[in-house]
Amino acid sequence: MNRQSLKEQIFGKGSYLCVGLDTDIRKLPASVRGEKDPVFVFNQRIIDATADYCVAYKPNLAFYESLGPAGWESLARTMEYIPKHIFTIADAKRGDINSTSAMYAHTFFERYQFDAVTVAPYMGSDSVQPFLEYANKWVILLALTSNEGSRDFQQLTVSPEGYPLYRVVMERAMQWATPEQLMFVVGATQATHLQEIRRLAPEHFLLVPGYGTQGGDLQAVSKAGLNVDGGLLVNASRAIIYASNGSDFDKAARKKAQEIALEMQHYLELYGK
Amino acid sequence: MNRQSLKEQIFGKGSYLCVGLDTDIRKLPASVRGEKDPVFVFNQRIIDATADYCVAYKPNLAFYESLGPAGWESLARTMEYIPKHIFTIADAKRGDINSTSAMYAHTFFERYQFDAVTVAPYMGSDSVQPFLEYANKWVILLALTSNEGSRDFQQLTVSPEGYPLYRVVMERAMQWATPEQLMFVVGATQATHLQEIRRLAPEHFLLVPGYGTQGGDLQAVSKAGLNVDGGLLVNASRAIIYASNGSDFDKAARKKAQEIALEMQHYLELYGK
Repeated sequence: MNRQSLKEQIFGKGSYLCVGLDTDIRKLPASVRGEKDPVFVFNQRIIDATADYCVAYKPNLAFYESLGPAGWESLARTMEYIPKHIFTIADAKRGDINSTSAMYAHTFFERYQFDAVTVAPYMGSDSVQPFLEYANKWVILLALTSNEGSRDFQQLTVSPEGYPLYRVVMERAMQWATPEQLMFVVGATQATHLQEIRRLAPEHFLLVPGYGTQGGDLQAVSKAGLNVDGGLLVNASRAIIYASNGSDFDKAARKKAQEIALEMQHYLELYGK
Repeated sequence: MNRQSLKEQIFGKGSYLCVGLDTDIRKLPASVRGEKDPVFVFNQRIIDATADYCVAYKPNLAFYESLGPAGWESLARTMEYIPKHIFTIADAKRGDINSTSAMYAHTFFERYQFDAVTVAPYMGSDSVQPFLEYANKWVILLALTSNEGSRDFQQLTVSPEGYPLYRVVMERAMQWATPEQLMFVVGATQATHLQEIRRLAPEHFLLVPGYGTQGGDLQAVSKAGLNVDGGLLVNASRAIIYASNGSDFDKAARKKAQEIALEMQHYLELYGK
């Protein structure tokens, strides 16, 4: 999917919500546990319930992988089921030497047909490059993540630049790819840094996890991050998919997604320019 | 597997060779291509041929994942087939927020019974911690990798420390875990840095990829890196598993592994103290 289509979806729906499909088999409601492929059935009902209010789905690969081959079957079925106009992100945080990254890119872009994959920057340009060789596919590079550990390395000051590693990562990566192919991960818990990040990368989409359960502030994120394309994908996972653990889990997810989308519509009108 | 057992294996066999099972279905010899699970059959013959001369096997997860569910079946069969006294490394380069890293740790340490997993440090301590919660299991943290891109971020100078990021990564990580649980990835192409790294981490095992096809120098690596426990796992993948692409691929792999092990035995006598 290209940037123009993503933008049209965002302003068409009045939402920049990404629903994180962190589907944990241990947390599934009793009503789906008896299904042959409970993870897929759960995702299917979540997708049916939320597709009107979100613009992206982000399966967290760890949850599927942990189930062995069956988990990858659930992932494939989920990917086939997601409507084609909705953006899809493989939250995989891959990154390896060039030839290995090329295998990962093949897996996510060709086998599973994702629009985007999250990539870890530590191994540098040649580890990212293979993911950039696909037209209308995206690298979402880790910049400043939502967790406590983001202080350990991402926020270290680099010399002689005199500013933090995550900013160096962003600056270098912007030399490797245009805003048509490259987004950055910036945690919702990092709203104080978001304004500066938006100045640094005025055009790039930012994928913002950490809203909801991890405590990020949607208004602060939106004010600092929205741009003329929307420019944000704000992810919520547990807050939506586990809004209820009864048999009405899909209705509760829909209600929560609708609530967030309504708030987003308001922010798009206020700040989306 | 604990450090003592690994050490005994190294000095018992006179080898610190790790065979990388980067099994690429496109490169398999014709003689195994017709098999029901050609990747497993290939691995099985490689394992039979090389087990006398290596102390570790390292499947590169990208290659298995790219085949979909069937690839994970091949991986599971391979893991069951590897003799239990040989160390196993999931070359996965994972790392995510705490709860997600816990899923990855579960997958590799419990489902697939690996001894170790390679982990990317960018997301910091809480992304690494879940992998450290298993007794006799290992984190192999990326420090200074073998590829060109290692210059982009790993070798940046951090302030006020005044030394490179990879060294800061190593110093911090050594506060999180002992040499009984933590190894570092240091590329064989980085032999000039290896002496300094060994001074910094005198006791830790180093996993050294990049020997063979990527051009690292085994003598230089061994001289700089060997310690009283051995302290090195030097990986070769393509140089061994694709030593021949005829039906004698296993014999060629055995010959190559034996050749490397003989050289290693010599270095263990010279430098392993």
